[in-house]
Amino acid sequence: MSARAALPAAVAVLGAGSWGTTFAKVVADAHPELEVRLWARRAEVAEEINTRHLNSKYLKDIELPENLGSSADVAKVLAGADLVVLAVPAQTLRPQLAEWKPLLGDTAVVVSLMKGLERGTDERMSQIIKAELGLPDERVAVISGPNLAMEIARKEPTASVVACTDLEAAQWIANTCTASYFRPYTNTDVTGVEIGGIVKNVIALCVGICDGKHMGDNTKASVITRGLAETTRLTLALGGELETMAGLAGLGDLVATCSSPLSRNRTAGRLLAEGLSLEEVNQRMTQTAEGIKSGRAVLDLANSLGVEMPITESVVAVLEGEISVDDLAPRLLTRELKSEGEQDQ
Amino acid sequence: MSARAALPAAVAVLGAGSWGTTFAKVVADAHPELEVRLWARRAEVAEEINTRHLNSKYLKDIELPENLGSSADVAKVLAGADLVVLAVPAQTLRPQLAEWKPLLGDTAVVVSLMKGLERGTDERMSQIIKAELGLPDERVAVISGPNLAMEIARKEPTASVVACTDLEAAQWIANTCTASYFRPYTNTDVTGVEIGGIVKNVIALCVGICDGKHMGDNTKASVITRGLAETTRLTLALGGELETMAGLAGLGDLVATCSSPLSRNRTAGRLLAEGLSLEEVNQRMTQTAEGIKSGRAVLDLANSLGVEMPITESVVAVLEGEISVDDLAPRLLTRELKSEGEQDQ
Repeated sequence: MSARAALPAAVAVLGAGSWGTTFAKVVADAHPELEVRLWARRAEVAEEINTRHLNSKYLKDIELPENLGSSADVAKVLAGADLVVLAVPAQTLRPQLAEWKPLLGDTAVVVSLMKGLERGTDERMSQIIKAELGLPDERVAVISGPNLAMEIARKEPTASVVACTDLEAAQWIANTCTASYFRPYTNTDVTGVEIGGIVKNVIALCVGICDGKHMGDNTKASVITRGLAETTRLTLALGGELETMAGLAGLGDLVATCSSPLSRNRTAGRLLAEGLSLEEVNQRMTQTAEGIKSGRAVLDLANSLGVEMPITESVVAVLEGEISVDDLAPRLLTRELKSEGEQDQ
Repeated sequence: MSARAALPAAVAVLGAGSWGTTFAKVVADAHPELEVRLWARRAEVAEEINTRHLNSKYLKDIELPENLGSSADVAKVLAGADLVVLAVPAQTLRPQLAEWKPLLGDTAVVVSLMKGLERGTDERMSQIIKAELGLPDERVAVISGPNLAMEIARKEPTASVVACTDLEAAQWIANTCTASYFRPYTNTDVTGVEIGGIVKNVIALCVGICDGKHMGDNTKASVITRGLAETTRLTLALGGELETMAGLAGLGDLVATCSSPLSRNRTAGRLLAEGLSLEEVNQRMTQTAEGIKSGRAVLDLANSLGVEMPITESVVAVLEGEISVDDLAPRLLTRELKSEGEQDQ
């Protein structure tokens, strides 16, 4: 690790949605001397970034820095990049990695910004990256925290967490993305950081449904509290750490996502509560509400480990049409909010 | 304890502010056969409750139940009451207890709804109650949780925590106040439940200031996360439990208070950020923002125990005029939000 330069030679960000574009902007703002390249699936998005310094579909009128270039040609974007950041939809990551593998540099470190669990395998993004690219733990990292992309794009002060089993690699990445408005901390609990980012989307769907049903802040705070408790149980069962759940990537991300009108998952929950079908909700959103896709995988993973996740279970029951949004709240209140530690009555 | 009847003979609630009145309403709604008496400092408030079933200053147009009566004569309210609930301003509790002591029944259990720390002594309400009334631990309880009074008054579903070192006493109280819309859980960690309720007011002031300064949800979520961390440190130093902090009386209450536009402390913080003086803020509020009064006591207590509470310290510095509201955010971001567990860079 000591042979690594202070900064990467070039940074490639694959995926030009709101978070991928914003993260590329953070790195470009942090180090104007760095070449930051953003892969966009569609050539017209790359064109707009290169000529107008805008990604208007996802970041409206946010001006992107000069040292952030874009291309729809992934080979060009990956060439010579020793830090590769992935921000594509979680459910399509695996087939894309197979295509990208031959283009990846021999020493490149790969970072996941993605917050989802693969349906069918119940695998986390870091697991898929390691398996598909044949990388060791120390070359795979994740970034997560209370990180609403649009706020960061507007340069509002934000903290985040970079996790890698190799703390030096985490620090190298953190150094690369430390901007005046973006402060990353480091830890080695990749599992905890990922699980926090995955499950909060499911809990945010529930808070959104409560919101759409005009339930109060007392109820929503109870859902958030019990939601973090079930996230923590899953994390511990997977070998992650309690401290991570109490920190920015656990509690912090959950609270930001459940509080913000910018949150896609909370918005999706609200639309469901207002009577839209799942299909209509998906059509209405410009970008995936990942909780809708990952919910079932989270529940399957929990069941396979014998972990009780009553809020996730209820949300999945709504998503799969087993119960209506009107039945969710009574079900949560009479059943899922029962337990408060071990000394319950 | 086994000699105790399933329900109290009569319930006295002392203090007819929004929470005292709401809690009296919960008990009266839960058990229409019970006599619930509310002491109001001012005779006109008692009169309005008795004749119009309203407490219009604090609960607007909420209709109070028939079995909830009020009086400004504390001796009448306390006569024969074996469950006595206190909801008066924290800073004036001690002198009032001295006056009420001779009127208290020999076996009465005393419950604190108050969320403050006494200035000067840095004592919690349960400590003051035990000392001033000469009561053993098993006759003193506290109730706290994500409990915005107006939401409960509107019968919006709410969970709460009743804590007493004697779990049977806690269960007796919980049974007395379990209504269709109010679900109390029990535990024995009086210290943790009280500290959660006290410090969240100080953190909510900080979130309110961030709000008034138009900071985003990323920042506010970080303040909530770090705020719970410093609350937890104080609780553990006082012998309270980690689980309480992760539950409804810790995280739950903090999130509800920091999320709600109904929160007095968050509102007070916002007004401070908008440039009002502390005096103007106090004049503007119909009821005490307890964080303003307890902040210094929390900080003194933390200092006496060697516990670092950087957010509390910053809020107290604003309240005492040492730093301006404009300096609070940069101070938090550069200094207080630095640490994330033990593996920080």
